[in-house]
Amino acid sequence: MATFMDVRHHMDAITAEQPRSAHAADLANEGREGVRVERAWAGPDSGDVFCLSQAPSADAVQRVHERAGHAADEIHPVPYSA
Amino acid sequence: MATFMDVRHHMDAITAEQPRSAHAADLANEGREGVRVERAWAGPDSGDVFCLSQAPSADAVQRVHERAGHAADEIHPVPYSA
Repeated sequence: MATFMDVRHHMDAITAEQPRSAHAADLANEGREGVRVERAWAGPDSGDVFCLSQAPSADAVQRVHERAGHAADEIHPVPYSA
Repeated sequence: MATFMDVRHHMDAITAEQPRSAHAADLANEGREGVRVERAWAGPDSGDVFCLSQAPSADAVQRVHERAGHAADEIHPVPYSA
């Protein structure tokens, strides 16, 4: 497993509820891909959403997000953290 | 206080040690700005570094990073999370 940070840009009119429902949609289908979506952060000003996950691959992360209806624009392996 | 995700791009040849030393440099000077840098994630493939913090403002986050020698390219308020 590896750690990934993915980014979605230009999400319009982000509300407090959206990250919760988007995260729930991820959690509902992550299992079949062996992905564990850990946390998401959303910024209504910039329209950017950041999502941290553990996964076998970036493609597996994207498949989870696509099924949940919110494909990522960027997916970065982030093996180092502090 | 608010939650911010900042992003640095094009960091060359990121090693496992770099996020730790960069984070230590942040922690060493965050106090005077009332900032709490919580976590940083780094991706040597993309050269991107993501950093999550609690702060009174985006400018305060940037001053901490600048003093630590690694100004952010983007700083996003991310009030919503899940």
